[in-house]
Parts: sequence; C-alpha cells; structure tokens
Amino acid sequence: MRSPTIKDVAERAGVSLKTVSRVINHEPSVHARTLDKVQRAIEALDYQPDQAARSLRSARTFALGLVYDNPNAHYVIAMQNGVLSVCRERGFGLQIHPCDSSAPRLAEQLCDLVRRSRLAGLVLAPPMSEQPELIRILAEQKISFVRIISARYDPKDGYPCVFVDDRDAAYAITEHLIQLGHHRIGFLWGGKEHRSSPERYRGYEDALREYGLPLDKKLVVEGDYSFDDGFRGARKLLALKEPPTAIFGSNDEIAAGVLAAARSGGIDVPWELSIAGFEDSPFSKQSWPALTTARQATEEIGRHAAQRLIAELQREVDGTVEPIANEGFSPELVVRGSTAPRRL
Amino acid sequence: MRSPTIKDVAERAGVSLKTVSRVINHEPSVHARTLDKVQRAIEALDYQPDQAARSLRSARTFALGLVYDNPNAHYVIAMQNGVLSVCRERGFGLQIHPCDSSAPRLAEQLCDLVRRSRLAGLVLAPPMSEQPELIRILAEQKISFVRIISARYDPKDGYPCVFVDDRDAAYAITEHLIQLGHHRIGFLWGGKEHRSSPERYRGYEDALREYGLPLDKKLVVEGDYSFDDGFRGARKLLALKEPPTAIFGSNDEIAAGVLAAARSGGIDVPWELSIAGFEDSPFSKQSWPALTTARQATEEIGRHAAQRLIAELQREVDGTVEPIANEGFSPELVVRGSTAPRRL
Repeated sequence: MRSPTIKDVAERAGVSLKTVSRVINHEPSVHARTLDKVQRAIEALDYQPDQAARSLRSARTFALGLVYDNPNAHYVIAMQNGVLSVCRERGFGLQIHPCDSSAPRLAEQLCDLVRRSRLAGLVLAPPMSEQPELIRILAEQKISFVRIISARYDPKDGYPCVFVDDRDAAYAITEHLIQLGHHRIGFLWGGKEHRSSPERYRGYEDALREYGLPLDKKLVVEGDYSFDDGFRGARKLLALKEPPTAIFGSNDEIAAGVLAAARSGGIDVPWELSIAGFEDSPFSKQSWPALTTARQATEEIGRHAAQRLIAELQREVDGTVEPIANEGFSPELVVRGSTAPRRL
Repeated sequence: MRSPTIKDVAERAGVSLKTVSRVINHEPSVHARTLDKVQRAIEALDYQPDQAARSLRSARTFALGLVYDNPNAHYVIAMQNGVLSVCRERGFGLQIHPCDSSAPRLAEQLCDLVRRSRLAGLVLAPPMSEQPELIRILAEQKISFVRIISARYDPKDGYPCVFVDDRDAAYAITEHLIQLGHHRIGFLWGGKEHRSSPERYRGYEDALREYGLPLDKKLVVEGDYSFDDGFRGARKLLALKEPPTAIFGSNDEIAAGVLAAARSGGIDVPWELSIAGFEDSPFSKQSWPALTTARQATEEIGRHAAQRLIAELQREVDGTVEPIANEGFSPELVVRGSTAPRRL
C-alpha cells in the first residue's frame, strides 16, 4: 500500500492543497472548522506530513546559503540577522558566502557550494541577484533561490524576489534638499554593478527635473559604496569654482566620507554644507551631526527574502502550486541634523 | 583484503604519521626526498588518502559553525571573513550562529545546532569561549571546537584555543597616555561577560601602578562594549569636579561614544581631551580625529582559530596524535590624532 500523500488528505477533507499545507505548517490563517476537517483527514489516513519534506530534504541539509558582495559591515550583519531569524523559526541553519560578484566562474562556484554543502537554497543579495546570466544558470541547474533586487516594480519574470524601490527614496531625499532651498546638489554614485546605483541616480535626476532645476554634470561623481570614495568625491565637488551647497551620497558610508572631507576642509555641516546618505546604518545616528538618510529596512528585507525562499521550498515539497507574490519595500526619508536650509 | 591505512603508508615509507598527514594535506613544510618516499608508498599500497576522512565525515557536512555574541558589526565581519577564508582553502562551508551568551540552555542549543546541521565543529568567540560549564558540556558531548579567548598565557587546560593578550595592549595604551603627561585617565569598561573586560582593566591598573599614579575609582565607569555606553560614561566623567584629561574606552565603539560626548559638550579633541579605543576597527581611522587604538588582528585571529580546529578534526581522522600548540596574539598600539600631550 502506498503512503498517503497531501493530495489524498486534500481530497478526503474536501479542501485545497494550499489549505492542507497551511495546516501542516501551523499557519494562523486557517478557519477552525477547516482545521478540524483537515486534522480528521490526516488522522484517518495516518498521513505523515513530514515524510514528503524529509524525502526531498534528506539529500540536503537544513541550511540556506546567503550570498553577498558588499563592503558595508552594517548592511551585511543586518541582512544576515534578518535571514537567520527566519531560518531559526523554521529549523534551518545559515551558511554565509561572501563572494566577488565579478569573478569569472561565479555561477559554477555557487552550484558547487550548493552541492558540496547540500544547501536547500540560496538567498542572493545584490549585485549577484541582478545578474541575469547567473540567475539563468542557477535556474537551469534547478537550484532554489530568492533574489533581493533594486527595482521600482515587481519584475514578474518568474523568479522569486524581494524588490526595493531605491528610486522613490532617492527622489524623496533630493526633494527634501530642494525644499530646503538647495539648487546645486552634488550626487555621489555607488558601485555600478549594483542596480541600486542607477536607480538612486534616477531618483535624484527625476526630482531635479520635477522641480525645474538644471542637471549640472560637474556635480555628479562616480565611485563605489565606500567611505573613501565619499571622501574623494566630496573633495572634488568642494574644489569646484561653484561648489554645491548640499551633497547626496548614495549610501551612509559615502555620506560619512563627505562629512570627513567637510570637516578636514573646515566646512561647517550643516550650515555651510548639507549632507544626506542612504540606508539608516547605525553610525548614521552616531556621527556628528547625525545623518539625514533613507531608512532601508535591511533586516526586514532579509526576513522577507528567507520567508519567500522557504515558502518556495515548501511549495516544491508539498505539491501546493499556487504562486506566491513577490514583496516590495520602499525606504523612507529620515531627517536628522546634517541637512539644513541653504544659507543665503 | 582490508584497505591500506595511513599507518601502512607511514611504515612502508619509514616516516611518522604526522609526515604522511603533511603530504596528504599538501603542507609546504615537507622535504623533497621525504615527499618522494611517501608518494611512492601511497602508490605502491594504492592508498586512498581521503577515504578515512570521508568515512568519518560522511555523517557530517563539510561545514564549521561560528558562534558569537557581539554587537560590533566590524568585529563580527572580520571574524567571519578570517574563519571563512580558511574554510574555503580547506573545502568547508561556514554556518553562523549569533546567540545570547546568557541564554539558560545555550549548551543544549549548540549541541542541537551541531547535530541538526551536522557540523564538523565549532569556532567559539568570546564570551561563549570563556564559559567553563559550556566548554565542559561540549567536550562531554564529543563536539569538536576551538576557543578564542582573552588570556595572557596559554591556559593549557587541554582544550584548543587561540588566546589574545588584552592586558598587555591595554597597558601599552595607558602607558602612552601617561607618557603624554596625563595623570587623570578615565577608564570605561566593556561588558563583564567578556573576559577581555577585566583583562583590559588590569592592563590600565598595572600601568598606573607601574608609573606611581593613584587609582581614582571615580574615573572608572562600568558599561558595555557599545557606543551608547561610551557616550553615557564620558558624560559622567566630564561632569566630575575634576574631570579626566584623557579617556581610555575599552573598545572603539566606546571611544566613538566618548568622541560624540566630547563634541556635543564643545570639548576639543585631542587638545582638551585625549581619547583612546581598542580594536582598530575601520571607523577608528574614519572618525575625526582618527582614534588611537590597539590593533587587534581579528581576521587573523579568526584564521588561526579555523586552522586550529581543522587541524584538530584532521587529527581525529587520520590518527596522527601529536598535540598542536595553541597560538597567542598581542594587539599593538596604534597612535593617531585623538591623543595629544596634556595641556598645561
């Protein structure tokens, strides 16, 4: 006699696979009467809910992998903690895999990692999550993953993701500076391999255009998401014949570099120069003055990514086939002491 | 016919087990002639060096666990990167396990973690590494581990460790401040669950004693290894009738808090107040002025801990029984702009 499956339970209880799955996973959203029906069907059939999961997972460990390439310790720790908090709730371990996003054989490396460590799936942080070729190979190799990406809308490309609307938040920061009377606003780019960089730049551009301000290319400097590039970029901007009265650094590390450059040049922040960052990292509250920034709920984003991936794994295992929606985040403007009205 | 063992290879080649193990692990320290002898013995016996290791490891994954409880993102990332760099060289993955060091059932939790995730062994960071009861239980449960601990000397208690001489480095920092003419030096404690805290305090005390300076208990404030406690502690010290002219924060986070307190109080650093930290974290170079500190080679310490643990696992597997020595680190004084001669 074959062992009963989740489908048998659903048929006997007269409910959908999804509902049985909800009961098995102790999700709170199940109506009491339905719960009762499903539980009675489970008992009658002597269905072992974990068996299917076990048979799939026996070849794997109960561990996810987190793949990232980011020099920012606070971002990485927040992401790890978010992903890990869900892993723990669901009985998974977490392997970390910092990597070089430009490594020539990265896809192969990740496939190796999953097989050697028998990982159940990968959480991909930017910029790996934003490399179409890498995503294609992982999908081809039947590796389960979820992506954290910078995007205005759900890409609806068939691959699970959590998307973050950087453009909108960058617009809000630029608008805040414009409303303080700043017309010459410097912009320091983050690393171009991250899609968040052009997205944040577009938010800056959109706000200038919306408010009828000219875009002066001399005020835009390329660089990486680092303190050093913030310092260098700010020195360049502050040496201009017509320097900006405000600088928007694409993340808090960059903004901290701008702050240091201002200080070393004897420029008073915020009265002679307004500075804004992006991320709401711990030190954005600790710098003097504290940084105006965009609150990017990194830990929460990590949590959602892990939930999305585990739901996807569950879907593979228990046969429920309803697709799960991707989730979007919008960082919000946080105004602190580093921005002030333009001195007239 | 039984499969040849590493002992057969050693006998045939006329060398020690340790030497065969070195050859198998591609360690560079093997003499060419010896290498040749061992390789010929391996060929003659058709010895499969990986078989023994495999039989032991098949029940485990090729992953280590890193266990820590530390609010300092830079410290954690440096430690992870150090441990992971060795894991990669040796074909291991790394699972992370941040935890609450005061959790009542921590030992049980760690045993569960190792079994559920089938980890080969654990790298224990402070303060878990410094809890005798926890160590006893892990050893009893035959869980392989290495400890990173704060200690002046090798404890030689039979359990593998990497030890860091915090006391010596704290002495050097205090001495530096004394030599700059400071007689009233404030001291801000780190969290007492970390053994590094009393060790750093003892270094401070020893230096004062050595230089014949009185220990004024009003200048010593307890707290945690955090920015906020540095800020609070400094406010307390600076409000004294006779405030200190220098403050030694037990880590860089604390020192950054002192810097913020000085700045918010309109006190010029370093001319009105010298500040020193401990750790050489990235932001100690980025603050204004940059922080005098002690360079604690966290990444290197992590590397050594992982090497020590993997060597220990290897020892279990391949039967070489020579004990491996524990390694010690001494952080060194790094003088930057936050300390200056006392103003007369």
